[in-house]
Amino acid sequence: MADTRQFSVQVEVLLRDGIADPQGATIERALPALGLEGVTAVRAGKSFRFDLAATDESDALAQASVVADRLLANPVIEESQVTVRPAGTAA
Amino acid sequence: MADTRQFSVQVEVLLRDGIADPQGATIERALPALGLEGVTAVRAGKSFRFDLAATDESDALAQASVVADRLLANPVIEESQVTVRPAGTAA
Repeated sequence: MADTRQFSVQVEVLLRDGIADPQGATIERALPALGLEGVTAVRAGKSFRFDLAATDESDALAQASVVADRLLANPVIEESQVTVRPAGTAA
Repeated sequence: MADTRQFSVQVEVLLRDGIADPQGATIERALPALGLEGVTAVRAGKSFRFDLAATDESDALAQASVVADRLLANPVIEESQVTVRPAGTAA
């Protein structure tokens, strides 16, 4: 690999539509007791952030997608959303 | 409350800098075995999405911040980042 640059990656992993989300349902039930009405459709998932060395942004996205699908998410029940930006730029 | 509109909220909860993150460290150690080099600074956290009824965007952000700080994050060891957008617009 010649020149590599650093990229900041965020991977968000959420349960697919139709998969039971008991953590989200529990949060939704707890909110009225805190005096918070009007919150619906709560989904609970995971978020990962890491830095990655890659030649360019499409290489970084490809590598990050491999990390997401092979290690961070279970593609059978979870969907992942990968966001890549050059290191040092705003979140 | 007069007119309310729906807003889509994302809350990302990550451990504060300096708090040990064993899940992130474990992921980082596992990556070379999958043939993935060059990944550093892995942080593992949580992501929540929900819909919220509010009068305007600043009201939605205020309500969502209360949800984040009182229910979703432990402010002693975790920091939360709240993103609010009108329902139906792109993620």
